[in-house]
Amino acid sequence: MSDTSKKTIVLFSGDLDKVLAAFVIANGAAAMGDDVTIFFTFWGLNVLRRPEKVAVRGKNTLQRAFAGMMPRGADKLAMSKMNFGGAGPRLMKKMMRDHNVSSISDFIDMAKEQDIKFIACTMSMDVMGIAREELIDGLEFAGVATYLGEADESNVNLFI
Amino acid sequence: MSDTSKKTIVLFSGDLDKVLAAFVIANGAAAMGDDVTIFFTFWGLNVLRRPEKVAVRGKNTLQRAFAGMMPRGADKLAMSKMNFGGAGPRLMKKMMRDHNVSSISDFIDMAKEQDIKFIACTMSMDVMGIAREELIDGLEFAGVATYLGEADESNVNLFI
Amino acid sequence: MSDTSKKTIVLFSGDLDKVLAAFVIANGAAAMGDDVTIFFTFWGLNVLRRPEKVAVRGKNTLQRAFAGMMPRGADKLAMSKMNFGGAGPRLMKKMMRDHNVSSISDFIDMAKEQDIKFIACTMSMDVMGIAREELIDGLEFAGVATYLGEADESNVNLFI
Repeated sequence: MSDTSKKTIVLFSGDLDKVLAAFVIANGAAAMGDDVTIFFTFWGLNVLRRPEKVAVRGKNTLQRAFAGMMPRGADKLAMSKMNFGGAGPRLMKKMMRDHNVSSISDFIDMAKEQDIKFIACTMSMDVMGIAREELIDGLEFAGVATYLGEADESNVNLFI
Repeated sequence: MSDTSKKTIVLFSGDLDKVLAAFVIANGAAAMGDDVTIFFTFWGLNVLRRPEKVAVRGKNTLQRAFAGMMPRGADKLAMSKMNFGGAGPRLMKKMMRDHNVSSISDFIDMAKEQDIKFIACTMSMDVMGIAREELIDGLEFAGVATYLGEADESNVNLFI
Repeated sequence: MSDTSKKTIVLFSGDLDKVLAAFVIANGAAAMGDDVTIFFTFWGLNVLRRPEKVAVRGKNTLQRAFAGMMPRGADKLAMSKMNFGGAGPRLMKKMMRDHNVSSISDFIDMAKEQDIKFIACTMSMDVMGIAREELIDGLEFAGVATYLGEADESNVNLFI
């Protein structure tokens, strides 16, 4: 059954600008009383990475190489356009501060406080070589069947 | 309440190809009698920029630099792939004309005639340093709460 | 009418990672008993191209050039990030195999077996210079009105 009180977002992107859009919508909906679930998949998983390097057993060289090239956490994200080797994100973050827009890290804290459900896609973690201990606390781990269950309960579903 | 007669699109992208897809869906739905809202955010705001340079007071140097590098208006948009410094969009526009597909400017006019609601995201305008007087006429200005209200009334919600 | 048993995906992207996400969701939903439609548009059409070169009459030079630069079929897709001239997709495909994740070609076969409806967007085919004989068998050909009809019957609509 459709229910106006639930929103589910697939966060596929790990670009600062798209991640910001996702968290603004998610936190806005939660502030208005909606249940919100974010399903982090592929590059979106980078938002959830711990900023420090985590030693993980059992990764092969390719997995290490792949994971090593991806940003670790919300403060390291690049932009989808006009990244300019990091100058774009610095500028965007400055403009966010100037206009009292929260940082992605603040949005994550806010989302946790508002009980937004964070689900990390286990298939993507496998494919991208990301282990559970590399990700922040407070996550659920699940696959597409769980996502579809959440989506079926939601009246707004977005793929970002 | 879900209602088959309303569609809401978040237009986050400013890429010619994605903007075209958004306007084809929006105008198609309006032609079939649906209410349609497009919420322009981030790069999607570039679609709404006036083609001429507009003098705006109170922008700082960074905001000017950032805004100065983004395309002004529907005729200047780049492609998400195969842009080739503008050759891709020229080719695509030629193929659109050859097959009687409207230009983005025509689609905007058509959207206005069909009473498609255009909402410019005020938070994105702040973050990207875009002022109201730089955008075309006939827009509403609002934030995420307004978007969520529109989305809740829609049976199809897309993030493009 | 909203109906929990139908999902419609617009597959706009032709990037390996996004295409994989789309097929995981589509096949997952079909496996759970849902009707699923994928509407292939723009770069998403490349997923449906036959791997061999197909001689097509009536294409002009520009159309040939444009189509010639795009990947032919599911095994040739690039990634949206970290493509590294094809090294990224090779690594990702290896990691997919290592974790028993199906290839895109397998997902296409699985989708056909599960009666997922594949619709190729005729307007995009015109704009991108792709002819019907260049695409794999088993497709329907239609435009935005058909997409909107499918979307209206679906309780989950995604634009990927």
